[in-house]
Amino acid sequence: MFAQRTLNLNSSFIRDILAVTQQPDMISFAGGLPDPELFPVAPLQQAAARMQQRLGNRLYQYSETPGILPLRGHIAGQLSEGDVHAEQVIITTGSQQGLDLVVRCLIDPGDRVLVEAPTYLGALQVLRANQATVLSIPSDEEGPDLEALEAAVKRHPIRCFYTVTDFQNPTGASYSLARRTGLAALAERYNFWILEDAPYTALRYSGEPLPALHTLLPERVIHFGSFSKVIAPALRLGWITAPREVIKVVEKLKQAADLHSSGYDQQLVLSFLQSGALDPHLEQIRSAYGARLEAMASALTRYLPQTLRFIKPQGGMFIWATLASNASTLELFRAAIAEKVAFVPGEAFYVNGESDNSMRLNFSNSSSAMIEEGVKRLASLINDNAHRLPASEALAY
Amino acid sequence: MFAQRTLNLNSSFIRDILAVTQQPDMISFAGGLPDPELFPVAPLQQAAARMQQRLGNRLYQYSETPGILPLRGHIAGQLSEGDVHAEQVIITTGSQQGLDLVVRCLIDPGDRVLVEAPTYLGALQVLRANQATVLSIPSDEEGPDLEALEAAVKRHPIRCFYTVTDFQNPTGASYSLARRTGLAALAERYNFWILEDAPYTALRYSGEPLPALHTLLPERVIHFGSFSKVIAPALRLGWITAPREVIKVVEKLKQAADLHSSGYDQQLVLSFLQSGALDPHLEQIRSAYGARLEAMASALTRYLPQTLRFIKPQGGMFIWATLASNASTLELFRAAIAEKVAFVPGEAFYVNGESDNSMRLNFSNSSSAMIEEGVKRLASLINDNAHRLPASEALAY
Repeated sequence: MFAQRTLNLNSSFIRDILAVTQQPDMISFAGGLPDPELFPVAPLQQAAARMQQRLGNRLYQYSETPGILPLRGHIAGQLSEGDVHAEQVIITTGSQQGLDLVVRCLIDPGDRVLVEAPTYLGALQVLRANQATVLSIPSDEEGPDLEALEAAVKRHPIRCFYTVTDFQNPTGASYSLARRTGLAALAERYNFWILEDAPYTALRYSGEPLPALHTLLPERVIHFGSFSKVIAPALRLGWITAPREVIKVVEKLKQAADLHSSGYDQQLVLSFLQSGALDPHLEQIRSAYGARLEAMASALTRYLPQTLRFIKPQGGMFIWATLASNASTLELFRAAIAEKVAFVPGEAFYVNGESDNSMRLNFSNSSSAMIEEGVKRLASLINDNAHRLPASEALAY
Repeated sequence: MFAQRTLNLNSSFIRDILAVTQQPDMISFAGGLPDPELFPVAPLQQAAARMQQRLGNRLYQYSETPGILPLRGHIAGQLSEGDVHAEQVIITTGSQQGLDLVVRCLIDPGDRVLVEAPTYLGALQVLRANQATVLSIPSDEEGPDLEALEAAVKRHPIRCFYTVTDFQNPTGASYSLARRTGLAALAERYNFWILEDAPYTALRYSGEPLPALHTLLPERVIHFGSFSKVIAPALRLGWITAPREVIKVVEKLKQAADLHSSGYDQQLVLSFLQSGALDPHLEQIRSAYGARLEAMASALTRYLPQTLRFIKPQGGMFIWATLASNASTLELFRAAIAEKVAFVPGEAFYVNGESDNSMRLNFSNSSSAMIEEGVKRLASLINDNAHRLPASEALAY
């Protein structure tokens, strides 16, 4: 009845449990949501008033497929490292659409794509929806295992390697400089594309920034940026920077896919950026999210000193925490929901949904007090061995 | 270097000539644009203020993949004929994204899709981008030739028939009741999907509405609606109504494609609709566009009584005009551009870009005075036989 590509489609575990995790009395570490209380509402309302004033009727008309030129120019000049020009930028409906368009541009059904284990599940969904053959390699706190990567590529050529280099979703890990240069050298030697997804790069709370992969190997890296985490997700605006020949093909696919992303929202974001509101807003959310990261790391260390391991990330929105090897975070999840605390079990982030003893904990959308209380509840369950419930009781969520 | 599906991608002729046709001294009958002077700017600004007031920070957060529920409910209850429920509606990034998602849901590479000749070129782009095998059948002022359709389907089964039943783009033709019921019967007998694209249905200036195909055969028709022509294209919002099992699969594809369409723009449109602003706005644009249709039909009849044929449509945005069989509207186009008047040569709307002696003339985005002047210039060129320039001089645009 439906096309082949629909047969592998999974709905996101996270989206499926959204209704449960959004109950008002739930402490949710499950989503990947920014805190709505920190949205730059006043600057956005002022930006909206200015654009309405300035553009009048023109604000509401059709516009160009690759995005409005001043926004592309602003991204090229101010939000991209390296030597990027406006015509190398396409505005997309969230960076999620960027991923979908680029995968459709590069991948035929069956083409091999390599990812890290674990990785962003939205990327797994796009790859499945486009019938890629997805393979994974292990990674650690400094990035992917490059020996495993080279061995995999030698066995079978790959078309793409998909990665989040800064504060990965779900692990929070960032690539070391050595892994960045090593990965770029492998992409050049074995002739594969790198899809560098960078939604969290601006959310750094400690440490020093390291060069993005597209500055190291511009001809082989397609870079994805997003306004969702740094301005507002509802506006669904992200961007791609890539070599010109890629942009040309992506533009044609985008024309067929939606003609263009919301011109209204593009003008709103442009007006916001031109007012200079981004930098002070970034300072504010970095300060708030950094404090929440500290609160969560501190609570995990205090309440679960023996049973849980994690590496504190330098930025982003997530802590990846690991229990004993015989524990099941899927079982823990069910018990936790009953205690009104939610997280995402690790298996959602693996290519084949492998069962896992890890979990993703989001710290950006809870106050420090809620973080303290939520970790306390989790610790009580873990210390009661609730995560070792009989595996036969299927997950109800 | 790129995926197979990119090899057949054409950029839209219309988008390619946009720069030329947007010169300030150009009279353009080329685009399919609503008149920006008629956008409901004041009601939209009031709707924006109300939603900001009402929702505060929540306005800017992520929302549900199929769209915000009150908007889906409003579409089901007020903007759809027949027995449609909110859960049968998905909000898309323009109806163009709806087309792309549904084609990806139903079509494997090589699957046969039937269209009318001529047809909407954005649909042709989507079908090419998804590697459908596109076949066409002739149509006339009452709709598609159903005998040709049945003969084609008997020769080779098809997966879908794509159509614009009301005020087609480019011909302006609307299906008679007999063709509607006949087409529904064929879809049922030969088991194919109908994709019913309805962006212009609300723009009726004369005659009586006829039932949409999805009310005649709800289990086999996927219906596409759009706010672009009746509110504002910049907001990029459209919708699909379809049987529940189709909606479920489309929702998963949409989750991978962009998570959701702009929540900000959805709330804006909802606030506009809830204020009751749509009906008076529709009355206003129907009156204005209806008068422009009259102006264009009258000018064509007065200036080109012998050399040009057309059937006045009952609604929509286009007149389809045909010259003598040995004329070339592609050659006429080049001469017309030099005289600062633009239109779209007919060949853009055919599956194989067949050369054609027809042209699409848009009347919604020019004043009656500009229409009079533009038709006068065209008539002068046609009467000078400018459309029979040597075919060897390639089109420069």
